[in-house]
Amino acid sequence: MITRISTRDARYPIGSGHGSDAIHKDPVYSYAVTLLTDDKGLTGSGLAFTLGEGNDLVCRAAEFYASRLQGRCIEEIMADFGALQKEMADEQQFRWLGPHKGVVQLALASVTNACWDLWAKTRGLPLWELLLDLTPEQIAATLDLSYLEDVLSRGQAVELLARPAASRTTREGVLTKGYPGYDTSVGWFNYSDEQVRDNCKRAMDAGFTAMKLKVGSKDPERDLRRARIVREVAGPEARITPISPPSGPTQWLFQGPPAESKLLL
Amino acid sequence: MITRISTRDARYPIGSGHGSDAIHKDPVYSYAVTLLTDDKGLTGSGLAFTLGEGNDLVCRAAEFYASRLQGRCIEEIMADFGALQKEMADEQQFRWLGPHKGVVQLALASVTNACWDLWAKTRGLPLWELLLDLTPEQIAATLDLSYLEDVLSRGQAVELLARPAASRTTREGVLTKGYPGYDTSVGWFNYSDEQVRDNCKRAMDAGFTAMKLKVGSKDPERDLRRARIVREVAGPEARITPISPPSGPTQWLFQGPPAESKLLL
Repeated sequence: MITRISTRDARYPIGSGHGSDAIHKDPVYSYAVTLLTDDKGLTGSGLAFTLGEGNDLVCRAAEFYASRLQGRCIEEIMADFGALQKEMADEQQFRWLGPHKGVVQLALASVTNACWDLWAKTRGLPLWELLLDLTPEQIAATLDLSYLEDVLSRGQAVELLARPAASRTTREGVLTKGYPGYDTSVGWFNYSDEQVRDNCKRAMDAGFTAMKLKVGSKDPERDLRRARIVREVAGPEARITPISPPSGPTQWLFQGPPAESKLLL
Repeated sequence: MITRISTRDARYPIGSGHGSDAIHKDPVYSYAVTLLTDDKGLTGSGLAFTLGEGNDLVCRAAEFYASRLQGRCIEEIMADFGALQKEMADEQQFRWLGPHKGVVQLALASVTNACWDLWAKTRGLPLWELLLDLTPEQIAATLDLSYLEDVLSRGQAVELLARPAASRTTREGVLTKGYPGYDTSVGWFNYSDEQVRDNCKRAMDAGFTAMKLKVGSKDPERDLRRARIVREVAGPEARITPISPPSGPTQWLFQGPPAESKLLL
């Protein structure tokens, strides 16, 4: 049973061009942290990321949502987690600030991540293993699919989850070793050409085969020059993803590489 | 020069079904108020509306934006107000919570409304008269058109504003008398049929020729019954707008009447 709820406004002024892109020149890497502690002393923690200012507002919104979990059992919460998420997003007064946008979306992310973490800790499993133990129906029940209901029914979602069951053992093998990662930090926007070159070398030495490069300069020649440096050091096989400045969290996730850069890389 | 900035979290629990729709059954009408006071003692006030919880977050965000106006002159602010609004919305750390959504949008509304109010008070004019005194170029300069730039250039916006200049005198006449209004409160969602009937009578007696009715019941018969009551009392000429539950501020503004209700009204 969840007995203690708290949030933490954690900010890290990283400076020196780290984390910069063409719009966010001076980000303060920040996390709105939700902590859910149960009566056995286990604590689930969830993070939502922001760039500094306003992180306290996300914490306050997360506290508002998390307070609804006080006294509830995590197993019971997760058994119908999708419905709970929808209920929280639709809370009749607070939803005016969202409902599925900005501070509401970030606060719900922080709270729901803490629930997943507490659930895995309660079962004494890493989260990926807990997820593998769930049936397609149980996984679907953890999701708020309301924003998809025009194109995907709950039944279809379950079917999508059940279909790849045959290849499951193979995929379990991948998970125990881990997926290949990419180096996100070789080419932050404000890095000098020398820094990009050095970072690429270090990434290759560490075994990375994929890396991310911030683009979106007013002067496209700068983007191209930096892209050529990365290709030169990383070689023809490496996967390089140019990322132009996001105008918000959503576009960040869905933005594809600009056509020109793609062509020239 | 703006010398004092403050915000106020004003909440009014109206109860008794007032303000209700099919989703917001128990709204607390609330205003995130921004107050900008200058060195002559004039105060501009701006409001953004919410339904209760989270109104304090809007106040805090408004304070963040308004603090950038400290020490600045309102005439200088309004001379290039569009650029200032864009600059505020794009503030590199806080924009992660928006940039043009939820709490950011609401907070900017509160602050920019306060600027308009202070400007009119400084010139000693009602706002509508101040607006009539501006040239098309000056009006365009008060607007952040960045979200329209793919389809509308600043030059085109100025042209759109300049075109109806010929009919200006006629329209000034309308403004001095005021536009016809509609009664927004005859049919809140939780009102009984009797309340709707009484309210409609009162609205007609007061001279209203247009009114708004909340729809979106799980039982469509209820919506239709209420719509027929309004039509019966208001007569065949009245303009009745059925409004179904909004999922947020934006949809509220743009939502058209459901086809069925439109047909049957």
